[in-house]
Amino acid sequence: MRSVRDAIDIIEGKWKLPILIALSGGSKRFGQLTRHVEGISDKMLSKELKDLELNRLVSREASEDLQAGVEYSITDHGRSLEKVMRELYAWGLEHRRMIIGD
Amino acid sequence: MRSVRDAIDIIEGKWKLPILIALSGGSKRFGQLTRHVEGISDKMLSKELKDLELNRLVSREASEDLQAGVEYSITDHGRSLEKVMRELYAWGLEHRRMIIGD
Repeated sequence: MRSVRDAIDIIEGKWKLPILIALSGGSKRFGQLTRHVEGISDKMLSKELKDLELNRLVSREASEDLQAGVEYSITDHGRSLEKVMRELYAWGLEHRRMIIGD
Repeated sequence: MRSVRDAIDIIEGKWKLPILIALSGGSKRFGQLTRHVEGISDKMLSKELKDLELNRLVSREASEDLQAGVEYSITDHGRSLEKVMRELYAWGLEHRRMIIGD
């Protein structure tokens, strides 16, 4: 039960999944992320990135182009959430069909 | 994304999963459930059962023994959450190992 709760703690909330989805399409700089994750404030993005980094779902490194500053990438551990999300997605679709579709 | 959110809305919160886990072991009456789901108040259990019923995860029927009152059971749709929970559990274990285990 505690492990299930740990997993839910990571994925609940409004922003973490959209950020991870944006990064699964490729590494991005802070400014690029704000454009990809619609509606997020700089302050919130900064907070969520720190939290994702602490949880080793996202890594942060200086870009090869030093002018460009730091880049954020999804880690292998972050990608391992994709399987969980596929299950959640499949179940959510079926649930929506069942509850709303009739 | 909306489907993933739907699924998370169902499983987040403190009580729904423990209630479903208790019922996956067999149908139970209200009083039995309060004993199985440690720490839940009658008021909260009543609220959560109504919500689970609305979402078709739990069904409520008169017990064969009329003296015994109504019984709550997990539905097939409720059981379909088990696969999602197994993924959440596996990922949460791995996450805990990774973050706390070193």
